[in-house]
Amino acid sequence: MSARVAPDQVCTVTCVGAGVIGGGWAAYFLAQGYRVRAWDPAPDAEAKLRHLIDAAWPALTELGLADGASRENLTVCATLAEAVDGTDFVQESAPEDLALKRKLLADIDAAAADHVVISSSTSGYPMTDMATASATPVRLVVGHPFNPPYLIPLVEVVGGELTDPEVVQWTADFFRAAGKSVIHMEREVPGFIANRLQEALWREALHMVEAGEATVEQIDLSITDGPGLRWPFQGPMLTFHLAGGQGGMAHMLDHFGPSLLSPWTRLEAPELTPELRDAVVAGTDDEAGERSVDDLVAERDRRVVELLRAKGRP
Amino acid sequence: MSARVAPDQVCTVTCVGAGVIGGGWAAYFLAQGYRVRAWDPAPDAEAKLRHLIDAAWPALTELGLADGASRENLTVCATLAEAVDGTDFVQESAPEDLALKRKLLADIDAAAADHVVISSSTSGYPMTDMATASATPVRLVVGHPFNPPYLIPLVEVVGGELTDPEVVQWTADFFRAAGKSVIHMEREVPGFIANRLQEALWREALHMVEAGEATVEQIDLSITDGPGLRWPFQGPMLTFHLAGGQGGMAHMLDHFGPSLLSPWTRLEAPELTPELRDAVVAGTDDEAGERSVDDLVAERDRRVVELLRAKGRP
Repeated sequence: MSARVAPDQVCTVTCVGAGVIGGGWAAYFLAQGYRVRAWDPAPDAEAKLRHLIDAAWPALTELGLADGASRENLTVCATLAEAVDGTDFVQESAPEDLALKRKLLADIDAAAADHVVISSSTSGYPMTDMATASATPVRLVVGHPFNPPYLIPLVEVVGGELTDPEVVQWTADFFRAAGKSVIHMEREVPGFIANRLQEALWREALHMVEAGEATVEQIDLSITDGPGLRWPFQGPMLTFHLAGGQGGMAHMLDHFGPSLLSPWTRLEAPELTPELRDAVVAGTDDEAGERSVDDLVAERDRRVVELLRAKGRP
Repeated sequence: MSARVAPDQVCTVTCVGAGVIGGGWAAYFLAQGYRVRAWDPAPDAEAKLRHLIDAAWPALTELGLADGASRENLTVCATLAEAVDGTDFVQESAPEDLALKRKLLADIDAAAADHVVISSSTSGYPMTDMATASATPVRLVVGHPFNPPYLIPLVEVVGGELTDPEVVQWTADFFRAAGKSVIHMEREVPGFIANRLQEALWREALHMVEAGEATVEQIDLSITDGPGLRWPFQGPMLTFHLAGGQGGMAHMLDHFGPSLLSPWTRLEAPELTPELRDAVVAGTDDEAGERSVDDLVAERDRRVVELLRAKGRP
């Protein structure tokens, strides 16, 4: 077995699947200076992939290309075996179909050299469920990106029951070396973290459209001109920390806690036990760190003002 | 009964309640050039209010003050009667307590001149439930802002069963004249629109903390470095329109529809009937208008690049 390359020494990566997500990964890796080998069995995959990379390139150029980054470093391969030849890392981004992913991950596992880590872009399947047909599940890991992977920094990294914890750590380190913002999850949860949150919002939105409570356009406007203006800078927890005024999250939970019983969404809330309240307050205090409520308000305001100005520009 | 002033001719507004929300409203109205009369029964309310307005003023100045805008135009009043004297409009922002709001709205209704529209900042109570003690429910309306009201443009406007539809229209027009982004809702829904969506996300987050599935900090990072970067520009619907590639929302629903059955959140999804699918696709097409998927991708990328650069600055 050849030794695994250090996470920051990876030169060549393979993208299996070259649709919106796989193609977005390819664009990102190219901009970071990697050599990229791509494979997708669809007949028009190469044309779509090059279209996507060309569309992404101006944004990536604006953000700054790595030394040596070039679209010339893309090799579109005719077979999976060719695509994994000489690679250090595989990112699988096939359609979201469990049977298909099981089979494909097993094929990648059979084709790739022993030292290669194989990561899946799955939006929500636990690796424990996807790795069942693979001979070497220890090197299979989830690296879940967000669309477009060439711009959105977040990658959620989590292993399955049989994944070697060193592989999970290697993958987190590799994505960090590649410039990503990584959440290294300790346990498997269907949908991971961001998609669970996003999916709860999306399902409530679908219910509202179905019930005639809001139009598609009202739903989008309610986010883009409302809470969506805070979330790029302060997540839901820090947002509510500031909703509590100088009393912060503690005041917010004590004051608005009863509204968890209100029918404000179709999702029932957990009981706000003293333990849960204290856990949320302590976590928020940890996250706020040295920053007082006044500091956080000033920080938020500065960011939101920039954002409103950016929104106002054509 | 004196005639109601035209929505764009309002000069004096009253803020009842001067905490984080009421104080934020006061700061916003002052920056827009209104005379503001404020009343809050808390003993330290005036000091807190002035602190809040001073903290908000740099951001408001940066965004541009209206002609004649000045913090000198604030009058802090000792009684409710004094606060509504000579006003054209009242914004109530008391604590979120139904009994308290019922009583307070009735008191405001009894004290204010006949032509005055009375709007509530409630986060989720239907006006039908809040207006039960008031003598003139025809002029009571919900105008639900987002924290901080001096920066976030969205206001959700909706009447109760007894509200005069002309009052609802007047209120929407007034907020638009005051520079707000208004969603004029046709029907009462507890939590309105944005809070229902936000609350679904928040409840899922609380469940995750309780179950040990994610930390407070991971939850915030999953939004700030993930989907939160898209939402200021493209809401959940347009976001998923782009997740479908060139096929747009139709392809997205046909492809990811089955994941609505996945346990990716504790909220069950509605059945994706052909009617619901078509309604979502049609609504998204309406919202996209003339903009092709390529146009929307370019627009999103330009905005997200600006946002990433803004995030990178201290």
